[in-house]
Amino acid sequence: MRVLLINPNITDSVSDLIRAEAKRSASPGTEIEVLTAPFGVAYIETRFEALVGAYATAQVAAEHCHQADAVVVAAFGDPGLTGLRELLPVPVTGMTEAALASAHLLGHRFSIIAISQRIQAWYREVVESYGFGDRLASIRALDRPLSSIGGVQEEHAQALKDLAERAVAEDGAEVLILAGAPLAGLARSLQGQLPVPVVDGVSSAVRHAETLAALKPGRARRGSFALPPAKPHRGLPDAIARLLDSPRA
Amino acid sequence: MRVLLINPNITDSVSDLIRAEAKRSASPGTEIEVLTAPFGVAYIETRFEALVGAYATAQVAAEHCHQADAVVVAAFGDPGLTGLRELLPVPVTGMTEAALASAHLLGHRFSIIAISQRIQAWYREVVESYGFGDRLASIRALDRPLSSIGGVQEEHAQALKDLAERAVAEDGAEVLILAGAPLAGLARSLQGQLPVPVVDGVSSAVRHAETLAALKPGRARRGSFALPPAKPHRGLPDAIARLLDSPRA
Amino acid sequence: MRVLLINPNITDSVSDLIRAEAKRSASPGTEIEVLTAPFGVAYIETRFEALVGAYATAQVAAEHCHQADAVVVAAFGDPGLTGLRELLPVPVTGMTEAALASAHLLGHRFSIIAISQRIQAWYREVVESYGFGDRLASIRALDRPLSSIGGVQEEHAQALKDLAERAVAEDGAEVLILAGAPLAGLARSLQGQLPVPVVDGVSSAVRHAETLAALKPGRARRGSFALPPAKPHRGLPDAIARLLDSPRA
Amino acid sequence: MRVLLINPNITDSVSDLIRAEAKRSASPGTEIEVLTAPFGVAYIETRFEALVGAYATAQVAAEHCHQADAVVVAAFGDPGLTGLRELLPVPVTGMTEAALASAHLLGHRFSIIAISQRIQAWYREVVESYGFGDRLASIRALDRPLSSIGGVQEEHAQALKDLAERAVAEDGAEVLILAGAPLAGLARSLQGQLPVPVVDGVSSAVRHAETLAALKPGRARRGSFALPPAKPHRGLPDAIARLLDSPRA
Amino acid sequence: MRVLLINPNITDSVSDLIRAEAKRSASPGTEIEVLTAPFGVAYIETRFEALVGAYATAQVAAEHCHQADAVVVAAFGDPGLTGLRELLPVPVTGMTEAALASAHLLGHRFSIIAISQRIQAWYREVVESYGFGDRLASIRALDRPLSSIGGVQEEHAQALKDLAERAVAEDGAEVLILAGAPLAGLARSLQGQLPVPVVDGVSSAVRHAETLAALKPGRARRGSFALPPAKPHRGLPDAIARLLDSPRA
Amino acid sequence: MRVLLINPNITDSVSDLIRAEAKRSASPGTEIEVLTAPFGVAYIETRFEALVGAYATAQVAAEHCHQADAVVVAAFGDPGLTGLRELLPVPVTGMTEAALASAHLLGHRFSIIAISQRIQAWYREVVESYGFGDRLASIRALDRPLSSIGGVQEEHAQALKDLAERAVAEDGAEVLILAGAPLAGLARSLQGQLPVPVVDGVSSAVRHAETLAALKPGRARRGSFALPPAKPHRGLPDAIARLLDSPRA
Repeated sequence: MRVLLINPNITDSVSDLIRAEAKRSASPGTEIEVLTAPFGVAYIETRFEALVGAYATAQVAAEHCHQADAVVVAAFGDPGLTGLRELLPVPVTGMTEAALASAHLLGHRFSIIAISQRIQAWYREVVESYGFGDRLASIRALDRPLSSIGGVQEEHAQALKDLAERAVAEDGAEVLILAGAPLAGLARSLQGQLPVPVVDGVSSAVRHAETLAALKPGRARRGSFALPPAKPHRGLPDAIARLLDSPRA
Repeated sequence: MRVLLINPNITDSVSDLIRAEAKRSASPGTEIEVLTAPFGVAYIETRFEALVGAYATAQVAAEHCHQADAVVVAAFGDPGLTGLRELLPVPVTGMTEAALASAHLLGHRFSIIAISQRIQAWYREVVESYGFGDRLASIRALDRPLSSIGGVQEEHAQALKDLAERAVAEDGAEVLILAGAPLAGLARSLQGQLPVPVVDGVSSAVRHAETLAALKPGRARRGSFALPPAKPHRGLPDAIARLLDSPRA
Repeated sequence: MRVLLINPNITDSVSDLIRAEAKRSASPGTEIEVLTAPFGVAYIETRFEALVGAYATAQVAAEHCHQADAVVVAAFGDPGLTGLRELLPVPVTGMTEAALASAHLLGHRFSIIAISQRIQAWYREVVESYGFGDRLASIRALDRPLSSIGGVQEEHAQALKDLAERAVAEDGAEVLILAGAPLAGLARSLQGQLPVPVVDGVSSAVRHAETLAALKPGRARRGSFALPPAKPHRGLPDAIARLLDSPRA
Repeated sequence: MRVLLINPNITDSVSDLIRAEAKRSASPGTEIEVLTAPFGVAYIETRFEALVGAYATAQVAAEHCHQADAVVVAAFGDPGLTGLRELLPVPVTGMTEAALASAHLLGHRFSIIAISQRIQAWYREVVESYGFGDRLASIRALDRPLSSIGGVQEEHAQALKDLAERAVAEDGAEVLILAGAPLAGLARSLQGQLPVPVVDGVSSAVRHAETLAALKPGRARRGSFALPPAKPHRGLPDAIARLLDSPRA
Repeated sequence: MRVLLINPNITDSVSDLIRAEAKRSASPGTEIEVLTAPFGVAYIETRFEALVGAYATAQVAAEHCHQADAVVVAAFGDPGLTGLRELLPVPVTGMTEAALASAHLLGHRFSIIAISQRIQAWYREVVESYGFGDRLASIRALDRPLSSIGGVQEEHAQALKDLAERAVAEDGAEVLILAGAPLAGLARSLQGQLPVPVVDGVSSAVRHAETLAALKPGRARRGSFALPPAKPHRGLPDAIARLLDSPRA
Repeated sequence: MRVLLINPNITDSVSDLIRAEAKRSASPGTEIEVLTAPFGVAYIETRFEALVGAYATAQVAAEHCHQADAVVVAAFGDPGLTGLRELLPVPVTGMTEAALASAHLLGHRFSIIAISQRIQAWYREVVESYGFGDRLASIRALDRPLSSIGGVQEEHAQALKDLAERAVAEDGAEVLILAGAPLAGLARSLQGQLPVPVVDGVSSAVRHAETLAALKPGRARRGSFALPPAKPHRGLPDAIARLLDSPRA
């Protein structure tokens, strides 16, 4: 089985973190590929940056999905995910969606630990769009500048752990989600150090992608996740155009 | 005052409908400009098409916003709207958001009359994302193929009126929203023929954009609608890059 | 165009504040009239006071609506608004409803800055009745006695600004609503001093009333906002009785 | 113990139905008094009529509450109830609120059987304002003209029973509420004929009013149900004025 | 009339508190019986303990319901209540459900004062399962060890009162619920000392059980609260088996 | 890895269906064990039957969890699941919870296809308790008697498929959940025959249980899913007692 993870931002060091944790998490026999967005911003914290990341991810996904059994949008916030679910011929999930699925299996109310103040509003909207708003105990975020986006989990290890502990003690979190690709792997390295189950987006996404590929639930041929209706288009990247023009079931 | 409307799909005949209704609706002294997306699909009905339309709209908006006092995303579903609200230095609204504001001022529960079956799931998600889910009495949609997207309101006039009447009689709609740029102007031509108030997205958007430009509520310098934090980026259209790099307040 | 604003409390100095801001906000050519409730209380903070204000407003509205193109219930909390929407032959809006419409066009989550502790529960219920409960970041209110209801915005200028800033910094407000007719005009005088867009109820109501009058969406002849069914009544003020007895469409 | 029921509409035959069912439902030793609104409409079906009924009820309640241990607003829809809870020195409940309390104790999802089409939107808003919207399976209503408001339960007995049965079979109602003072007593006369528990507003209100009077939970001296803050007023009925001016605890 | 209260935990001193308050609260002529679970834990604070308490309560209820006109599950959290409503031939309520009914009749937003930190999550889920989540202002709980479960209200009287006062002042509670059978009677002994109405689960349950028995709303013969469909079973206590096998209406 | 599935009802033929599908779904190297409740009913359709099934499942789980890496409550409706999550030292999931996790990864709105009319209300409450109520498009159920619970998927194959198709066409289901252990494996045998992705509870539960065991998110030592506080108990099965008495972390 082959799982393709697409980093919607342009930072290679983040792709490296994603790749490392994806490989540690994958089942035996699963091949991991990580690709990086060809354009966009260094780190996605806002609705506008997600809009850009969504389009960049769509281009990469359209070009490379044929060699994959499942695709992962590898940024918390899942830029473009629901659109890609219409377009791609294979299952697709995202780091937020997958982390929520894991958290849902471990407890009722969860907190999200994030790496910037600004990112919180966007995360909240994404969580609410999935219908998980009532289960969100809190979002807590670092409030200091990050020297390097790829090094945030080392630089701020203690601060992140403190946020997690306060989410449990003060907000009633029953599960913790360490959010954002720059934190990929942190849940694993904190194993046993936090008082409630801890969820990581990358490992959740890889495992759930494997599950979807294994269970073969079938692709939508009707309803709102079927391929968009055939229609004229103009100026789209070839790979996207080909998928839009592919025959309907 | 100058209001710029951007049609996120590539169909010029739809831009013409938008322009005509926008001019009929504008206050004396308001100048209307309508631009069409340079790439994308003929008509946006799905999440993926909205993802594409959002990026195309962002490019047009970034290039042309400096000559406008307010910007309107002129497709029902508002592709890219909340992202653009972060990016642009002027107020921006969308056809769905504006139609909801009008409906909110006219009654409690509203129905949306739409031009395709497929479009309904996406519309519902957009309405829910604005928090108006509990006020949505129903979405009713044409269930027949459209010969031409620009001619839908003439071709299907009676069917659309029938849907509207059923929404009032069977779903408890207290207000009707005729949705989609291809229906721009239909509310006006049906004036007096439907038993509850009727809302049009284009005229609502133009009027509410004028209001925002007139009231000058101020631009966000903090919070999640401020300009995204300055950071490295790559491969973005110049106009977008310039806005992202503009000085923070 | 003529917009009639009715102050549901008995305080003339508040009517003066309303009139001044309404005139500043109106479009060229719009005539503003402000009337004051003939009976009731000095300032409406509670459900019972709103019950009284609703009946007083209904009497004034019934008597004077025929000379107006739109009516505004000029107290935050909108006493009697949804009832008047059934009764009056012209569009009617209220300060809360209109402020929410503006806030909805400017951001997702908003805070309300209010002038008394007691008023908060009633405001919250009104916001929730419009379906905006999930978008309400917080209500923050002055906690000191007011020497004069007409002078509150000068007397407590700094305290009000502090509340607004805390709502942004601590509650995640993306938009601020300065609530209550006694604060009419404060948003305008604070222009540029607060870090997110600021909404005023009076100016929003005037502008949205103009929009409704201009767009002519039609009056409800069916559904729950049509005139109440004809039926016997007794002891009602003449103007109300005449409206209830007017011919059904 | 003495329970005062106030009929917010002007129809004496409805007051008679209320009185008869209240007496049948009361505990031994409870005295029942029923008063009729001195002004208003023959039957309350809309928001505006409720606004009128609220003010009329407030006048009656203010005048007569001192001889009662508890007060009941005896119209479904509870005109003025939450306002009166602030004003009156004794517990006050309403037919809708009390019927919901009973339904809550008997099952999860309930349907309301009502006597007019128009009344449904208002009922729904009242139910939602109490937070019971998610438990409302349906509202079903007669769709024919009523010859006399006091005779509706005899004239339409079979139609009402049919609506009730369809609510169980088609809408999943686990409890039925027969709504509106004109149906007072119908639940009792249908005893054993419907397949799920049946709730009546008058008997529920009488019994719950007795419970509140017996348990003596205490009157609010703080919070939003305390007496409104003392302040100037003008033109209010004496009894209301006296209550507003009474000493604060 | 005979009301049977079943204490789902094994602590006799708690049963004594329940019995005392039930007797003080009952109407003249109502006989009170309190039984204690034959197996289980000393005090129910968690979902698992509630699971055990539910089964123990079901055994007691099945054996003894035939001598009762109504049954009360006498633990806050209502272990097994909705299941027992299907099984038993008489009305059944629980302390949480009944306290919520009382709170609903006294104000809009309520706080729960509880005796342990751990108990809060379970209480919140129960309140939400009844649809009262939006009316819950807060849960506040003791944060110290309890020397004896039967003596908690004396040992921690001041701390409990402090929690109640903070719920009013800081959380906007309009009604207070003193939760948990170990606090039975505390509302009565604090009468007049708290600034908003105070609700007790035992007295509410007794009074509401009397109301249900008196109003005779009828037992469900259809829908989800009817007796479970007849089917094979094995290994169940005789009394439960007999009820499951009793003839369907 | 070893996954233990516990069938909370007493029907061995259902356990056989569960075992067969679990083995087909498990990853290479996962060992499957299925145990059947020692007491209870033939098929769980109601809240009371779930109460019984929960206690029976708890006994089996407590006795056998030490030989398992993860436990599955193998009945749709998840009797006892959240309680067991507190008690057991290994991850535990249930068929409904796991099916919802899969559906969440495949689309937004889902329908549940069930095997009896009666079961629908209970299923709806369970789905709502997980916070998925707004994503539930519909529950559709067989409305005919079942000759044998183990043979329902063959006997009613066409009727089940018809229900599924109507859920897509009429209710807007984007994903289908075939609910109930008696339908275990049906999703697999209908592969490719339904127009949207199809989810099976058993295979979802097995795969997600494997994921939880593999990712090792950690057991709760704080918060509401930690082991219940140590306290006296009486009359509990030994295995349960030992778990309750085991040392706290």
